[in-house]
Amino acid sequence: MNKHRFSSAELDGVYKAISQRRDIRHFLPDPIDPEILMRLLQAAHQAGSVGLMQPWRFIRITKLELRTKIYNLVEIERQETAIVLNERKDEFMKLKVEGVLDCAELLVVALTDKREQHIFGRRTLPEMDVASTACAIQNMWLAARAEGLGLGWVSLFDPDKLMPLLNMPIGSKPLAILCLGHVTEFYPKPMLELEKWAIAKPIGEFISENIW
Amino acid sequence: MNKHRFSSAELDGVYKAISQRRDIRHFLPDPIDPEILMRLLQAAHQAGSVGLMQPWRFIRITKLELRTKIYNLVEIERQETAIVLNERKDEFMKLKVEGVLDCAELLVVALTDKREQHIFGRRTLPEMDVASTACAIQNMWLAARAEGLGLGWVSLFDPDKLMPLLNMPIGSKPLAILCLGHVTEFYPKPMLELEKWAIAKPIGEFISENIW
Repeated sequence: MNKHRFSSAELDGVYKAISQRRDIRHFLPDPIDPEILMRLLQAAHQAGSVGLMQPWRFIRITKLELRTKIYNLVEIERQETAIVLNERKDEFMKLKVEGVLDCAELLVVALTDKREQHIFGRRTLPEMDVASTACAIQNMWLAARAEGLGLGWVSLFDPDKLMPLLNMPIGSKPLAILCLGHVTEFYPKPMLELEKWAIAKPIGEFISENIW
Repeated sequence: MNKHRFSSAELDGVYKAISQRRDIRHFLPDPIDPEILMRLLQAAHQAGSVGLMQPWRFIRITKLELRTKIYNLVEIERQETAIVLNERKDEFMKLKVEGVLDCAELLVVALTDKREQHIFGRRTLPEMDVASTACAIQNMWLAARAEGLGLGWVSLFDPDKLMPLLNMPIGSKPLAILCLGHVTEFYPKPMLELEKWAIAKPIGEFISENIW
């Protein structure tokens, strides 16, 4: 008997959030309760970070003009990506890859500047700042699912072009455009599977013992 | 009323896992139920990944000789880090920064090779592979907390030295040494706060609106 184990319902909640979380691109316009938004940001901020560096920053986009500029950046990158995808270009262009204009809340998550001061756990793996920030976003993603809200992580943008729009300092870096909102449904499978873009492989192919 | 919202107990479970998850370095030797280990790996594998690339791989370390070699690598990096930390060297050397020899299960999580084939969502942000893998680890971390198990992410190692120990192919990259096991207690605060290495800053400093 493990006294630290959660109750059955709590444990179910954790596994349910993990299995039913989806990367959402289809939103309803209904607003988000500000208290829930704050709970989600708190959830993100409770993530661990390498050497306790807390390398993240959350920028809430409330100006429509700014949201439109961000949408345009994503659209430019969508076109650029399509070109590089060559023979899958047409197929890619049919996918809905973002919900920037549709979602109730738009957030930019960024790495802070002056991260080079933090060496603990990063001397050989400097990308641990990205990893810590991704952990924070995953917290938010799971909490949003539990609250019944959809979240989509859009990485189709040029960080160098987004930085001046938000007056970001040199050395910082935007890592995510997050679309948050109510949804009609959570996709039963990852949307890219439903759209036959890719098929998720089962776990057996990803586990080994002692050797690659 | 949001029909997608979890029950109160399930929602509590998610927030409890998020707030009580800790980066653990102190373990009890008791073994992990293989079914629970599999559930945790499944939880990791259920993470979203950019363009559905599933860039992760999990290597379970069961050979004591290999575990000892991994411990030695971490110890070398601990010394190297201490040197770079200069005036905080002695303070750093007093911290317990890993539980590699003490934990019940040792896992290495790595990025797969041939990731350059995946351009979707990564043309301008190639580090999204690291981000996706960190999301997978965060899933595992939260599920472990809910199961009453401690998990520690050790990034104090040289990836180039770990790769040959596990016969990892060129182009792959180890990102985490994960220590998993039963614990006497979950730290009430991050261990680095308890040890007065750093103080976590409150969320107010990390949020802004429309501008940095």
